[in-house]
Amino acid sequence: MTDTAPRPTLEAVAARAGVSRATVSRVVNGGDGVREALVTRVRRAVEELGYVPNQAARSLVTRRHDAVAVVIAEPETRVFADPFFALQLRGISKELTAHDNQLVLLLTEGRDDHVRVGRYLAGGHVDGALVFSLHLDDPLPGLIQHAGVPTVFGGRPGWSESGGDAVFVDSDNRGGAREAVRHLVGLGRSRVAHITGPLDQTSAADRLEGFRDVMPDADPRLVEESDFTPAGGERAMRELLDRRPDVDAVFAANDLSAAGALRVLRERGRRVPEDVAVIGFDDMLPVAEQTDPPLTTVRQDIEGMGRLMARLLLDRLGHRTAEGAEGAPSSVVLPTTLVRRASA
Amino acid sequence: MTDTAPRPTLEAVAARAGVSRATVSRVVNGGDGVREALVTRVRRAVEELGYVPNQAARSLVTRRHDAVAVVIAEPETRVFADPFFALQLRGISKELTAHDNQLVLLLTEGRDDHVRVGRYLAGGHVDGALVFSLHLDDPLPGLIQHAGVPTVFGGRPGWSESGGDAVFVDSDNRGGAREAVRHLVGLGRSRVAHITGPLDQTSAADRLEGFRDVMPDADPRLVEESDFTPAGGERAMRELLDRRPDVDAVFAANDLSAAGALRVLRERGRRVPEDVAVIGFDDMLPVAEQTDPPLTTVRQDIEGMGRLMARLLLDRLGHRTAEGAEGAPSSVVLPTTLVRRASA
Repeated sequence: MTDTAPRPTLEAVAARAGVSRATVSRVVNGGDGVREALVTRVRRAVEELGYVPNQAARSLVTRRHDAVAVVIAEPETRVFADPFFALQLRGISKELTAHDNQLVLLLTEGRDDHVRVGRYLAGGHVDGALVFSLHLDDPLPGLIQHAGVPTVFGGRPGWSESGGDAVFVDSDNRGGAREAVRHLVGLGRSRVAHITGPLDQTSAADRLEGFRDVMPDADPRLVEESDFTPAGGERAMRELLDRRPDVDAVFAANDLSAAGALRVLRERGRRVPEDVAVIGFDDMLPVAEQTDPPLTTVRQDIEGMGRLMARLLLDRLGHRTAEGAEGAPSSVVLPTTLVRRASA
Repeated sequence: MTDTAPRPTLEAVAARAGVSRATVSRVVNGGDGVREALVTRVRRAVEELGYVPNQAARSLVTRRHDAVAVVIAEPETRVFADPFFALQLRGISKELTAHDNQLVLLLTEGRDDHVRVGRYLAGGHVDGALVFSLHLDDPLPGLIQHAGVPTVFGGRPGWSESGGDAVFVDSDNRGGAREAVRHLVGLGRSRVAHITGPLDQTSAADRLEGFRDVMPDADPRLVEESDFTPAGGERAMRELLDRRPDVDAVFAANDLSAAGALRVLRERGRRVPEDVAVIGFDDMLPVAEQTDPPLTTVRQDIEGMGRLMARLLLDRLGHRTAEGAEGAPSSVVLPTTLVRRASA
C-alpha cells in the first residue's frame, strides 16, 4: 500500500517502447498524429511500467484536467433505480471516452449535499460539468455559477422561461405531450387524464402545458401530480379511477409511471386500450416493450441527449474545435416522435 | 454561464448569519463543536449567498480534498445493470456523506480506460480510493500504487493469496460456498452442479474452491464457468442439462445467475426443488425473494461491505480517529449465512 518504488519516468517508457520521448508525450497527451502501431506500443509500455504522467505539472501547463463532472440532482438511490439516468450516462460516457476525458460522477444522498458538490466543482478538479434532473428551488445552479465551471444542463433549467444564458439540451416536452394527447382525442376519447411528473421540474411542467394546450377545459380532477416512478404511477391511477371512474384515456408523463398505471387498470378490470387508452413518454427500452399491453409512447433519444450534452461541453472547452465546431455552443431542443404500440 | 459576480466572502456569510467569522469557518470545515441551531443558520446563509469556500487555499493548508474516488473495474453498462454495485455504492455513499466526504465515481467504458483513471487518481483530486470488482490481469492495482493514493479494495485482490499488503473487505466466499453445497448434500443430492462466476475474480474462484472442498470428486462436466449475469446463468444451465440430464442440484455463484438457471429449469419442465434444488449467493433483494420459487441463498451484507470499506479508508485518512479507531486498519473478512427459502 505504501508507495516506496520511484515513479517510472517518461524516459523509461520511451526506452521500453523503443520510441522518442516526444512520441510518448504525444501519446500520453491524446495521441494526435501518432501512428496506431506506435500508440499501441507506447500504451503497452505505459501499462507494463505503471507509468502515470505528472498530472500536477501537466495541469500547470495546460490548465486542463481532461475530466468532466456529472451531477444528477437526485439522491443516489434514485440514480440507480431509474434507467433514464443510466441511459443518459451511457451517452455521456461514450462521448467523453471518445475524447479521452474522465467521467467523474458526483453522487449525493440528496439536496443537503449540494453545497459539498459545489465545493468540489470549485476545487479545480474538473474542466466542466454536466448537470441534470434539476428541481426548481435547488441551490446547485447558484453554487455552480459561483464555482465558475463551464456547464451544460440536461433539461431546461427552471430559473427562467428560456433558461437564461444557460446552455442546455432538452426534448420538445410540450410538443411531444401535445402530440400524445391529440392522438388520444383522435381515438375518440374525451375524458383524458394526465399523470404528471414532479412539477418542480421543467420537463414535467412543460408536458402538463402540452396536455392543457389540447385540453384547455379539462376537469382538474383528471390531472394528478406524481413523481416519475412506477409506484407513483400506481397511486395516481388509483386516485384518478376513484375520482373519475369514467376516465377513458391516460397520458402519463413518463413510461415508468405509465407501467404503474397499466398494472392498476388491469387490477381494476379495465381493458387497455378498449376501456382506457394509455400513452407514456420516453420510449425507454425494454420497459415500453414489456408492459402488458406494449406501450404507445412519445420517444425521446435519451442516450443521444447525453451524448449531445457531452459534445456541447467539449466544444466549449475547445476539445473538439478541430472537428469543425464553431463559435459558442447554444442550447438544443430535440424533436420527439410518437411510437405506436398496443396501448393506444 | 459566465462568472462575473464577485464570489461572496466568509465575512459576508458571517454577517448574513449573524455569527462570528470563526463560527462560519468551523461550520464550513465540518461543524464540530458548533450548536445545531447555529449550524443551520450558517448553512442557510451559505446557500442564500451561494458561498463556496476557497478550496484551493483550504487544500494547501489541510492537504485534504474531503473527496474519495470509487472505481468499479467494470464497464459503466455493467455497473448500472447489476444491482450488486448499486447496493455497495449505497453503503459507501451513506458513510462518506456522514463524514461530509464527496463520493467521486470514476466511470469507464472498460479496461482500456484504466490508464486514464490512474492519471486522475494521481492528479491530486481525491484523498483516497475504494476499488472493487478487480479482475486478475487488470493494470489498475499497479496504476493505483504508482499514484500513491491510499486505497481500500472490495474483495481480496487477485495478485497474491493473502492479497499482499492491500487492505480489503471481503466475504467468506469459500466458507459460504461450502455451507451451500453441504446443504444440498444434506438434502440427499449427489449430482450437484456449480455455475461459477468469472474465474479471473477471486470471489468466483474462492466459491469454486468451496464447492470442491465438499465435492472433491465431482464430474468436471458438472462445473460450468459463467459471468454473474442472468443471461449467463441461463446459458450455463442449458449446457449443464445437456451434458448431465441427471443433475439434481445447482449451486450458482450469485443470485442473478441462479435466477437465470431457474428460468431454464422451468422451461425444461424440471420442478424446483423436487427434481433440482437450487442455491444462489448474495441474498440480493428483491431478486432472491421474487424468483419462482423464492431462492435459498448464501447471504452477504453487500451494503454493509460498502460502508465498511468507506469506514476503513476514512480511518486510514484520519477522519475518524476521534471516534476510537486505532492503528493501521487491516483487512476484514465477513461471515456469510445460509438463508433458506423454497428452492432448496
